[in-house]
Amino acid sequence: MNRPTPASPATRSVQEQARDARQAASILHHTPDDARRAALRAMATAIGDRQEEILRANRQDLECLTDRPAAFRDRLTLTPPRIAGLVRALREIAELPDPVGRVVDSRRRPDGLEIRRIRVPIGVIAMIYESRPNVTVDAAGLCLRAGNAVILRGGAESLRSDQALLGAIHAGLAAAGLPRAAVTLLERRDYDAIRELVGLHGLVDLVIPRGGEPLIRFVAEHARVPVLRHEKGVTHLFIDRSADPEMAVRLALNAKTNRPSTCNALETLLVDREVADRILPPLVAALREAGVEVRGCPATRAHVPEVRPATEEDWSAEYLDLILAVRVVDGLEGALAHIRAYSTGLADGIVTQDRERAERFVREVDSAAVLVNASTRLVDGGEFGLGAEVGISTSRLHARGPMGVEDLTTTKWVVWGSGQVRA
Amino acid sequence: MNRPTPASPATRSVQEQARDARQAASILHHTPDDARRAALRAMATAIGDRQEEILRANRQDLECLTDRPAAFRDRLTLTPPRIAGLVRALREIAELPDPVGRVVDSRRRPDGLEIRRIRVPIGVIAMIYESRPNVTVDAAGLCLRAGNAVILRGGAESLRSDQALLGAIHAGLAAAGLPRAAVTLLERRDYDAIRELVGLHGLVDLVIPRGGEPLIRFVAEHARVPVLRHEKGVTHLFIDRSADPEMAVRLALNAKTNRPSTCNALETLLVDREVADRILPPLVAALREAGVEVRGCPATRAHVPEVRPATEEDWSAEYLDLILAVRVVDGLEGALAHIRAYSTGLADGIVTQDRERAERFVREVDSAAVLVNASTRLVDGGEFGLGAEVGISTSRLHARGPMGVEDLTTTKWVVWGSGQVRA
Repeated sequence: MNRPTPASPATRSVQEQARDARQAASILHHTPDDARRAALRAMATAIGDRQEEILRANRQDLECLTDRPAAFRDRLTLTPPRIAGLVRALREIAELPDPVGRVVDSRRRPDGLEIRRIRVPIGVIAMIYESRPNVTVDAAGLCLRAGNAVILRGGAESLRSDQALLGAIHAGLAAAGLPRAAVTLLERRDYDAIRELVGLHGLVDLVIPRGGEPLIRFVAEHARVPVLRHEKGVTHLFIDRSADPEMAVRLALNAKTNRPSTCNALETLLVDREVADRILPPLVAALREAGVEVRGCPATRAHVPEVRPATEEDWSAEYLDLILAVRVVDGLEGALAHIRAYSTGLADGIVTQDRERAERFVREVDSAAVLVNASTRLVDGGEFGLGAEVGISTSRLHARGPMGVEDLTTTKWVVWGSGQVRA
Repeated sequence: MNRPTPASPATRSVQEQARDARQAASILHHTPDDARRAALRAMATAIGDRQEEILRANRQDLECLTDRPAAFRDRLTLTPPRIAGLVRALREIAELPDPVGRVVDSRRRPDGLEIRRIRVPIGVIAMIYESRPNVTVDAAGLCLRAGNAVILRGGAESLRSDQALLGAIHAGLAAAGLPRAAVTLLERRDYDAIRELVGLHGLVDLVIPRGGEPLIRFVAEHARVPVLRHEKGVTHLFIDRSADPEMAVRLALNAKTNRPSTCNALETLLVDREVADRILPPLVAALREAGVEVRGCPATRAHVPEVRPATEEDWSAEYLDLILAVRVVDGLEGALAHIRAYSTGLADGIVTQDRERAERFVREVDSAAVLVNASTRLVDGGEFGLGAEVGISTSRLHARGPMGVEDLTTTKWVVWGSGQVRA
């Protein structure tokens, strides 16, 4: 997690800030689509116009950075092409169909009541994340698209970048006549402020923590409002006896190496004992050629002796790196048992040409996304066609899997009558 | 809340019991509809067959009861017609269409991926409630209908009744070949056991507390798993200047007196100043004739002087009794402001013949159910045509308003490919 920074006495209390967000949310609740779209487009323009200022703030953030891994620095860094990407993302979010007002259930009762269940904004969302300015823009855009107010709390290291981006976001809100309090950064910067924010039952409706395990644990421990977790992904790919061997290698390779640092990257490969002797040698060779370190069970090592032995910890590891655990299992039954024991429920897949076994896998694996003959890396809001995503939920309630704008809404029941009473 | 009872050393730990429920849930996750229906029908039959035994247990519970209000005793009491009602409820739940497997989203991507979002069971549900044996049967039936395992914790005063009902429920599960652990009563009966149960992140997926405010607060305070609240309802009916006066009286009377002890009963009536002189005298007369005590604002008392004055507390009161707060407001604007300030977001209605004002009310009131020209008492799973309801959610996430079996499911994404990878 980010190191705490001292609170400034000039800032509002967390509760005051949340109250203002609540008030903005009650306006956004019935703000027409046009105004929300206009705000998003104006934000995009303002970010483009203020590129120099934003890059300057980002350089200051980077200059203060010490002792952080290259990946951390990379995620914090803004460049002209990356800013163009943020502008494009906001324009794309503006073009998404409005989720608000969509009718999800509709019924006419025998007594003539007309009942509809329609999508409405959730209200006030708190987003707690790390030093990633792109999340600041995406989260602001997606929350506003769905009519929510959002309080953002990025990492301490990206504060200047986030403030510069917020300036552009506020310019966009002002241009569309929407309240500034619709998007704010949490003003008090100490840890206690986060603790207080996620405890404001009645003022904050949802917390989305996005980051490493310590961040998620901190939020979950202190939250008194609902939390949608975006937790670690120990994802599996099972190579069934009927798998096309070429496809199996291609999917394993893509799932592991396409972008190893993401939660939908492959962490454990399961191979049907029946075909282990044929599948494993070329597969391991291809993985090693791609720079992947393979850690295998004894049966794996019997087929490919140069593989390093896996320990019990490897089956629960989210490497987020070019490392892969490989285990030989007793057919589909063995794969299902392993997945039941070790999957974190984010994404698990099977490679098979057998329809019946595929169907059984799909039925029995209880994960947010279950894939047949496709790379786990495809579990993503963009790839699923949801537009942008605010994260991948590993929670089971409300939202599960890639979360698009629709998952940033709730519903209300609307009842039209002509004097009906209860008997 | 219920008074604590000492834990028996013979019982399993809460964690062991939850682990067994988890295992049952992983079987139920892919149990076909037929088996779940068969279990519900067999439970209904077993409850009918064991009526004498159940009534005997219930009499023992009632004999031990001291110092409780008549309403408490009434909710605990079982009679042959009430048992027939439980049997009928289970048979009706069995007939509800299966929510599991229903496709809620379906898309084919340009690369040929077939993506579906389907309904699946939530997993393990903990239901914490008071001494109401009918909730034991309804909750068991609804949870099982949607493929969930459930751990029930009713009030201490209904333990013998709940145990007798559980015997019949287990007979039903056995008849359909489903695991006993699919429905259990929390074995440890002390408060710490509830605290532990609602903290079992990873073993319990959802907690539904149903009861008075202390119970809800206790659960919310200790929960580490998602909670769906069934909280108090301070519901409003606004009589607009264009309301049909006869309809206004009829709706107010029904909403207040049909069953005053329920959360969807009317608590505050708002009257447009424009028509207060014409509406209030006959309305208050009708309410008083029905035995309702009216507490009014100064403007109300100017029109009907014999009304007792309302205090600030009355605007937040959930009377659950034949008492009604009445306030004269400055038109729709005044009604919206009052509702924004005092509604608990369960159900609020307007009586009007003006389409435009009705639409504005529907758009701006952010409650789980918003009604036009209908009694708030109609906000109910049965009245909405959802089949039985497990409660009325005042939470904003996952489920909002009357919760039927569909709200006892979550979704999973199922992806069928032919070797697709991420670019």
